[in-house]
Amino acid sequence: MPVLVAAGAEFEVSRPFAGLTIGFRLHIEPKTAVLIEALVAGGAQIIAMGNEGTTQFGTVEVLTQDATTAGSCEILDRPGDGPSETAANLRRIAATKPDLVLDNGAELIAACLAGGHRPVGATEETTSGAFRLREEHAGNVSFPVIVINDSPLKSIVENKHGVGESVVDTVVRVTNMSLHKKRIAVFGYGWCGRGIALYARQRGADVVVVEIDPIKALEAAMDGFDVAGTSQVTDTADVVITATGRPDVVNLATIQQLPDGALLVNAGHDDNEIDIRGLELVAPGSELSPSLKRHDLPSGAEIFSIADGRIVNLAAVGGNGNPIEAMDLGLTLQARSLAALVDTGSDLAAGPQPVPDVINDNVATAMLQSMGQMGRTYRT
Amino acid sequence: MPVLVAAGAEFEVSRPFAGLTIGFRLHIEPKTAVLIEALVAGGAQIIAMGNEGTTQFGTVEVLTQDATTAGSCEILDRPGDGPSETAANLRRIAATKPDLVLDNGAELIAACLAGGHRPVGATEETTSGAFRLREEHAGNVSFPVIVINDSPLKSIVENKHGVGESVVDTVVRVTNMSLHKKRIAVFGYGWCGRGIALYARQRGADVVVVEIDPIKALEAAMDGFDVAGTSQVTDTADVVITATGRPDVVNLATIQQLPDGALLVNAGHDDNEIDIRGLELVAPGSELSPSLKRHDLPSGAEIFSIADGRIVNLAAVGGNGNPIEAMDLGLTLQARSLAALVDTGSDLAAGPQPVPDVINDNVATAMLQSMGQMGRTYRT
Amino acid sequence: MPVLVAAGAEFEVSRPFAGLTIGFRLHIEPKTAVLIEALVAGGAQIIAMGNEGTTQFGTVEVLTQDATTAGSCEILDRPGDGPSETAANLRRIAATKPDLVLDNGAELIAACLAGGHRPVGATEETTSGAFRLREEHAGNVSFPVIVINDSPLKSIVENKHGVGESVVDTVVRVTNMSLHKKRIAVFGYGWCGRGIALYARQRGADVVVVEIDPIKALEAAMDGFDVAGTSQVTDTADVVITATGRPDVVNLATIQQLPDGALLVNAGHDDNEIDIRGLELVAPGSELSPSLKRHDLPSGAEIFSIADGRIVNLAAVGGNGNPIEAMDLGLTLQARSLAALVDTGSDLAAGPQPVPDVINDNVATAMLQSMGQMGRTYRT
Amino acid sequence: MPVLVAAGAEFEVSRPFAGLTIGFRLHIEPKTAVLIEALVAGGAQIIAMGNEGTTQFGTVEVLTQDATTAGSCEILDRPGDGPSETAANLRRIAATKPDLVLDNGAELIAACLAGGHRPVGATEETTSGAFRLREEHAGNVSFPVIVINDSPLKSIVENKHGVGESVVDTVVRVTNMSLHKKRIAVFGYGWCGRGIALYARQRGADVVVVEIDPIKALEAAMDGFDVAGTSQVTDTADVVITATGRPDVVNLATIQQLPDGALLVNAGHDDNEIDIRGLELVAPGSELSPSLKRHDLPSGAEIFSIADGRIVNLAAVGGNGNPIEAMDLGLTLQARSLAALVDTGSDLAAGPQPVPDVINDNVATAMLQSMGQMGRTYRT
Repeated sequence: MPVLVAAGAEFEVSRPFAGLTIGFRLHIEPKTAVLIEALVAGGAQIIAMGNEGTTQFGTVEVLTQDATTAGSCEILDRPGDGPSETAANLRRIAATKPDLVLDNGAELIAACLAGGHRPVGATEETTSGAFRLREEHAGNVSFPVIVINDSPLKSIVENKHGVGESVVDTVVRVTNMSLHKKRIAVFGYGWCGRGIALYARQRGADVVVVEIDPIKALEAAMDGFDVAGTSQVTDTADVVITATGRPDVVNLATIQQLPDGALLVNAGHDDNEIDIRGLELVAPGSELSPSLKRHDLPSGAEIFSIADGRIVNLAAVGGNGNPIEAMDLGLTLQARSLAALVDTGSDLAAGPQPVPDVINDNVATAMLQSMGQMGRTYRT
Repeated sequence: MPVLVAAGAEFEVSRPFAGLTIGFRLHIEPKTAVLIEALVAGGAQIIAMGNEGTTQFGTVEVLTQDATTAGSCEILDRPGDGPSETAANLRRIAATKPDLVLDNGAELIAACLAGGHRPVGATEETTSGAFRLREEHAGNVSFPVIVINDSPLKSIVENKHGVGESVVDTVVRVTNMSLHKKRIAVFGYGWCGRGIALYARQRGADVVVVEIDPIKALEAAMDGFDVAGTSQVTDTADVVITATGRPDVVNLATIQQLPDGALLVNAGHDDNEIDIRGLELVAPGSELSPSLKRHDLPSGAEIFSIADGRIVNLAAVGGNGNPIEAMDLGLTLQARSLAALVDTGSDLAAGPQPVPDVINDNVATAMLQSMGQMGRTYRT
Repeated sequence: MPVLVAAGAEFEVSRPFAGLTIGFRLHIEPKTAVLIEALVAGGAQIIAMGNEGTTQFGTVEVLTQDATTAGSCEILDRPGDGPSETAANLRRIAATKPDLVLDNGAELIAACLAGGHRPVGATEETTSGAFRLREEHAGNVSFPVIVINDSPLKSIVENKHGVGESVVDTVVRVTNMSLHKKRIAVFGYGWCGRGIALYARQRGADVVVVEIDPIKALEAAMDGFDVAGTSQVTDTADVVITATGRPDVVNLATIQQLPDGALLVNAGHDDNEIDIRGLELVAPGSELSPSLKRHDLPSGAEIFSIADGRIVNLAAVGGNGNPIEAMDLGLTLQARSLAALVDTGSDLAAGPQPVPDVINDNVATAMLQSMGQMGRTYRT
Repeated sequence: MPVLVAAGAEFEVSRPFAGLTIGFRLHIEPKTAVLIEALVAGGAQIIAMGNEGTTQFGTVEVLTQDATTAGSCEILDRPGDGPSETAANLRRIAATKPDLVLDNGAELIAACLAGGHRPVGATEETTSGAFRLREEHAGNVSFPVIVINDSPLKSIVENKHGVGESVVDTVVRVTNMSLHKKRIAVFGYGWCGRGIALYARQRGADVVVVEIDPIKALEAAMDGFDVAGTSQVTDTADVVITATGRPDVVNLATIQQLPDGALLVNAGHDDNEIDIRGLELVAPGSELSPSLKRHDLPSGAEIFSIADGRIVNLAAVGGNGNPIEAMDLGLTLQARSLAALVDTGSDLAAGPQPVPDVINDNVATAMLQSMGQMGRTYRT
């Protein structure tokens, strides 16, 4: 993760977090450990917890024993923690009145607000967390909250290329199927859908895009994809992939119209874009491999599903998640946004807001350089 | 132009312009004649003039003699008209106090304002015309002005795919050069630059993008292009293409660093992105073919230029302009925007504004259908 | 033409043709003039004629007046020459008993044989000329004849990329049509067809390949194209392009099944792949532009044709022929093959034969270097 | 495997192997079991053994217990078999004097020849097995041996698209690395190299091809890839992938010139294209994950290797081998070639020979149909 490591090296000199505490709430695993190291290098004292059930305790051990982080980073998670421990840990971090909060889902910010604490500022990883702050805590958030996921860098690097590529990879990996001339219906032509459609075509698939926004649909057609309505693809799709952010896009009636052998895949964040629960009621899945199920419809058709309709590149066994380069980008946005919150020059308004332009530009430039661009020598 | 013709057929029934006059200022040639026919079918009485020197009088003759348009369309242009006649015609149209104005450069709207006339509403083709209204006539534009060129449809269909493809085509056409493994430096990764880079790569070129916005530069890199600064490309580029919208992007010093044989091409609207004037002073071009010049630099290097640095796909002999499908789209946006201005349901604010979403959606859907999408039968 | 010019520079030192005469029969225009210059630089005395009606007399004037070629190159063509002058010129060259023959269609070789002359060796540009030698003059050709067109370099550089790209370019140029989502049926998946299919897809077209050889058809499918039989494409193709080398591939019955608005294009050498003559009988074409005709079928459908079904990239007005790089390659193969015929080390058998491997390798390497490959400096 | 299953269904009717025995020597696993079932359906009595150490005994159990194959298929392998049992089994099958032999490496054919048995005919999976027959048993092979791997179908479907895609997939899977703008040096532009280069580019890599044959090198350049010599890529390659079929293409001296962090990958059949053994001597690998090693060079540079330089898509943990469609193709070629050997109409010569055209055509057509081609209904 060269971009994040470079940020950490810079922080070691500039010490933006000297004397400050950070309440940290993000999956704790080797990659986020690099983020913690960068923040500690910048002078931060960290009190941290992961999302429930995702903490890797080997990483915790490294962070709490390593000389550079040991005295500066406390991690509250314990093996076997359940909902009540999670709630207690959120309250416990809020009670330390951290100067800054790094959040993932807005629960730690909510705990601070509930405890009457107003940090100097916060970062929030998710769009849905930001939405919750605007809906449930409107008027209450008197400090800036930088929403990482809305950065245009994440749309391009993580959603289009990172997610798009890894979703298609995971389908191939789980099925060992060639996609050549397979008809793949991609529901949704947002950033993830654009990437899924692109990488499926790169493997020889015939992609048809289903998209209710006519402007995006026209973009898909100009990009060379077929465009159709749901009813036009259901009797011919070999593979259905959803990436819409909406529930019940592929409902049971649609599933029942699919041809024999069709495969159901969801790439959206929630597991409700395809009605796998409804399908399970009429045709319980039998497991063919850890992430692949076959459903025998009453009609006689066999329908296959991956990972029970959960987000395929993360939930499927063998799903490769996002490439390390996309993680490097996202965590560097986190690190630099935290620094901006305590930089008097930033002059940030209160409430949820996008990553400042200057940070997007800075991180984009650093990532370009890590890709060998902007300093390349050309042929003579 | 099936999309515009369909709009005209609809207007013939709905008659949105019945009893209304339209002051019309747009190039008058066979394609815009179809727009005039659609407006007349909708009940409009039109008084028209083209942009100076672009009027095709064969088209004028057809429009003024054809039974369907003859009585409903007056065209003021006469062969040989110069600046003074143009100014007089603008005043003359303004003096008729048209109910609606269709403008291209905001001069007709300015003439109306100067004459104290406030139309019900107007459309303006160009972004620069809209800019002028905001700068020079701020507070004065008490009626809605729909700016066609800002429509996301135009960005995708016309700028990226229409302009991008035709710029690359024109370079090949003028030079009869294969682009395989030619190193092409594309300055600017806006919509036009994205298309130019894409279509040059489709022909086997090695494209390097020069872009000062780091976010767009990162997008270019993720799209697979090399990204570099000006100084890194100047000693190796076989072809330089500018599409930045800024002056002096490739100045004389840069031109003098280019390798022997380099070709200069501008795809931006104005002819000042590459300093051809400066080049002419030190190395006057000798014409090799109507649009291709060779400049012998004092250093001994030969530099080639197309169309004196004017917008290549329009200005070069053999330049194919935009494909007819892009024209169909743009003129339909014009027609439907004019109808929206007199539709009481539209409820438009005063001043320059983007094309209403409902029109973008409507035109996008019509164009998809004209492309054979959304109603296609798939294999069984 | 850097590769041919480099060969000429080499010849100027090695003088392979010193004291030898070459009977030359090839289109005489600026590019072949560079070939003549290279041969003269190598010491040759040339007596030349073009193919009937293709000679450019401006080029003749340059060659016969320029100091370097004036005394070494006689050109027999005169403006207005017809079949009888052509036959006389062939006999006249044969009567000079040239040491080497460069032929294009095998007529000059045939004239030599008829006159009892056996040159040291010959080159023949075309596959059909070689075929004629094998059929009509079998056993009679006691000297080596190197057949240029069978070189694998020509298949790749000229047929796939040169012809493929220029055929698609010419269709766009003549029609100013966008190919996005147009359904294009490509008949034949040989080298030309592969290129046409590829470059049409690069412009956004939906390509369906019609190919009777199942292995090539499978290759097309693995390359991502749809594959179908004639009867499956005729009611839906927007554009039909033939590149099969066979007559009557698209016959009148097929044409009559095409949808309204379909466009007929031939990319094969002969003008009989599409039965335009039959079409003319039932629906005479009216000219829309110099190379574009509209045929009104009795059924009411309009069918369009380009260049009367002749080879589109050469015959259409605005067709760009092959890119200069493909010419450079082909003419260098000619020059080096002629040198090999008089190189005692070549040890060539009698009769028509492919370009020797060593020449293909040599020319391929030279062309790679002219493309900036093999000596490029990469980023550090 | 629809194509093989269809062949089996046809055999069930035509019974080409009725009364015949087949000596079978091929990996025994679920996919080859489908081949055994097809042969048994055609009337064959089979005596089989796998390649050493690859037999899956679950599959053996199914085949020996299933009603359709139980009485017609004897499998000699036992868990724990070593070289001496393998040799004994080869002799044992040869001693049964099978009418037909299906071989993989020519050892069973050699055992027949050694035992004085001449079968009616044989198939041999590998090119190297065919080579051995020509070298070591020349003049001795008095019966036809159809060499499956030389079929042009395998070049396209298996080598280019199957191997090419799965090699790149495996690199991504083992490293979780994004290939965007990574510089990947592909050694060899044969069928596998063509596919590797293509699929690496589809993932955003900058591919440079190293190829000693100038004609293939020129093809690579025309396909848009950079082309260079070994010395030009060694100081910049992020990833090196070999697919040449030659030993020591990347030797220790080359490895030592690679930049810090470079990754070594072999896609060739043998594990000697990259000198991993030499690398191990100077920089023993430490295992980072089951298939990924890091080598710390004395110079301080870190070099990574996958699967110790063995064929990556088969040998790496998580390598996905070939897609099932490529297996379907190859095994159907086996089945139909065996039937051709006993079809009196085939009239095959003695000795190793390619798959008959009629079989290639037949299997290509069947595969096209299984891909939904040739019978597709197009939009109206």
